Amino acid sequence: MDRYLVISSDGHAGLPPERYRDYVDSRYHAAFDERVKIEVRQRLEFEKHFLIHDFNTKWRAKAGEGLDGAWDGTIRDRVLDRDGVAAEVLFPDGVTERNAPPFGADIGLRPSAANAELQWVGARAHNRWMAEFCRDNPLRRIGLAIVPALYDIEETLKEIRWARDNGLKGVFFPALTDGFAMYNDRKYYPVWELLQDLDMPLHFHSGAAPAFDITQPGWIGTYLCEYAFWLTRPLWSLTFGGVFELYPKLKVAFTEAGGEFWFPWIIELMDVRASAKHTSGKLGDYRTNMTMKPSEYFARHVWIGCSALPDNETTESYYKIGIDRILWGTDYPHPEGTWPNTHEKMMESLGGLPEADIGKMLGGNALSVYDVDARALNALAAKIGPLKAPFVKRAA
Amino acid sequence: MDRYLVISSDGHAGLPPERYRDYVDSRYHAAFDERVKIEVRQRLEFEKHFLIHDFNTKWRAKAGEGLDGAWDGTIRDRVLDRDGVAAEVLFPDGVTERNAPPFGADIGLRPSAANAELQWVGARAHNRWMAEFCRDNPLRRIGLAIVPALYDIEETLKEIRWARDNGLKGVFFPALTDGFAMYNDRKYYPVWELLQDLDMPLHFHSGAAPAFDITQPGWIGTYLCEYAFWLTRPLWSLTFGGVFELYPKLKVAFTEAGGEFWFPWIIELMDVRASAKHTSGKLGDYRTNMTMKPSEYFARHVWIGCSALPDNETTESYYKIGIDRILWGTDYPHPEGTWPNTHEKMMESLGGLPEADIGKMLGGNALSVYDVDARALNALAAKIGPLKAPFVKRAA
Repeated sequence: MDRYLVISSDGHAGLPPERYRDYVDSRYHAAFDERVKIEVRQRLEFEKHFLIHDFNTKWRAKAGEGLDGAWDGTIRDRVLDRDGVAAEVLFPDGVTERNAPPFGADIGLRPSAANAELQWVGARAHNRWMAEFCRDNPLRRIGLAIVPALYDIEETLKEIRWARDNGLKGVFFPALTDGFAMYNDRKYYPVWELLQDLDMPLHFHSGAAPAFDITQPGWIGTYLCEYAFWLTRPLWSLTFGGVFELYPKLKVAFTEAGGEFWFPWIIELMDVRASAKHTSGKLGDYRTNMTMKPSEYFARHVWIGCSALPDNETTESYYKIGIDRILWGTDYPHPEGTWPNTHEKMMESLGGLPEADIGKMLGGNALSVYDVDARALNALAAKIGPLKAPFVKRAA
Repeated sequence: MDRYLVISSDGHAGLPPERYRDYVDSRYHAAFDERVKIEVRQRLEFEKHFLIHDFNTKWRAKAGEGLDGAWDGTIRDRVLDRDGVAAEVLFPDGVTERNAPPFGADIGLRPSAANAELQWVGARAHNRWMAEFCRDNPLRRIGLAIVPALYDIEETLKEIRWARDNGLKGVFFPALTDGFAMYNDRKYYPVWELLQDLDMPLHFHSGAAPAFDITQPGWIGTYLCEYAFWLTRPLWSLTFGGVFELYPKLKVAFTEAGGEFWFPWIIELMDVRASAKHTSGKLGDYRTNMTMKPSEYFARHVWIGCSALPDNETTESYYKIGIDRILWGTDYPHPEGTWPNTHEKMMESLGGLPEADIGKMLGGNALSVYDVDARALNALAAKIGPLKAPFVKRAA
């Protein structure tokens, strides 16, 4: 084949909030209407402090109807065709554009005991819409179910089964656990078992962090310094909790993590912390849950959804993390993603690397993570995928 | 001089909890008695899950009366003489041994609105004892005041002035801020100004982390993977908050941070996050508070208290952080420290490095951080300091 198969590990899809009403049980309609109104207002306020208004206005003007691909399948397929992307993993949205249900059932998936019931309402509304959206084009849409997994294990198990039965191909869990049990807790064992049995990969996605005071100087810099930490806390709690020892086929993806240097550091950190260091002798034996090194579990269980940052350091880090673990992504329809210049940015980022490595990162690895029709995807890629030839020469 | 001046950046001193009673205002005696009883019981329970009982029993037997140097000045001076240490920065204790007041006024200094008043009671009790302890040997004891700085700025300013007037030479602030304002908040400006004016270095010390469920597998590994994060959150909030821009003479030390690789990573992380990256365009301009790179502020304002981990990687990291920023420490009287084999471990860790660099890390840098009598310390070091000659050959 003279073209690459591209499966983007990082796509965002969802309805504008008010349109989730049809997917919400009518007894929640009053709460829904009220919350949508409040959240839209909060969002406009937030954008003043957070997202640069100018930047976003320009971006929206340029992006045009492509942004509506968040919920319009026809537009989305057209964008993907032009971008050379055969299929996508679909997360909810909730940052740049507000294409997500209310009630915190969005890419932040912030835990809250008081909000638990309604967050489930929002999550189920999204999952029902997402299942429909994927049914319209099951080959190209790898839908994830939003699962607010921290509150009730039975409800979590039920939603995972529902998701599997309805064509969704993985789950998206909250990275922040706040006051709730962290992922080393035994209470989650049935969840890991079910995900393993159903071959449903578990996903965490960057975005959430504790609430900062957005009227104070430097809070964005603070956020940028620590968002990768908040995303990856589940990694070491799962690893040291022995979850990968107990569930040797569990698959976990961490997406849009500033992976370019964060993950090589964290893999090293875990290995050092798991080694018998003088300093930790007094703390007790924390290695009884593991028969392998953290980096070895990583290489068996973990994939990194890398939303392309086109620079040399990034690709060096891909090799440190392990080429087999990298799932390239476009982050469509976000402005920091590669769309609508995916070809060009791919080449900037990956041009000159060995063809086999590029093939794995762009799509080959994803075939081993997701339950997809590889033959049909390859046939599609043979028509729309990026040509391999121009990748031989490195742009820089 | 044929000996090095050693100023340990990391010493722990404090009374057994019940003996702080005399330093507590009598109207708090009832609360004090009740809390000491509860905390002693909790501690014994905690040790079952956390600190290995065997490890600690053996260590205590070996350490013998040296442990009483936590509060006994005669023993402490004897230990320091044998260890070749001229002076020490004195933090409270509260981990391996419980030599700290109750009410959370210990090395964890965990914030709590409900506990604020009593934490201040505990902190003041410790500070009053520490001031006495330092008065007994002001040359060798660089005492820090415990300052629960998150609650009330006036009270904080008052305690800092009291500490300065009573011979203490720096302050120890909570690294965890929990729900309270982070250190980029404008409310702390008067605090930074006062610390700068009085030349009182600000200290954070590792130890605190959010409460983990200690009955679950893997929680210690989780703690070990993230304690350096919890310690260093103030670093990026101060930096991106522009505090070093506004207070160009403020001094900050981060102590026992697993500095061997964490700090080079974090310095790089801050510089990358402060650079104009594609990905953060939408978030707004977070660099208006800074005229320099984070690494440049680091090199002007920050010192790392490195409690010796004797391996090669560690010393490589010292060079990455910058030899001028390193303050070597013994962590006396903790078992993970170098005492009672400080000479040997110093040589393992530093042997073979240039003499000038060793001199800076062991004590020279500290002279530029703390208000100490350099001439008298050098005279003392000329008698008790480690001989330079054996450092020429590297042990490995």
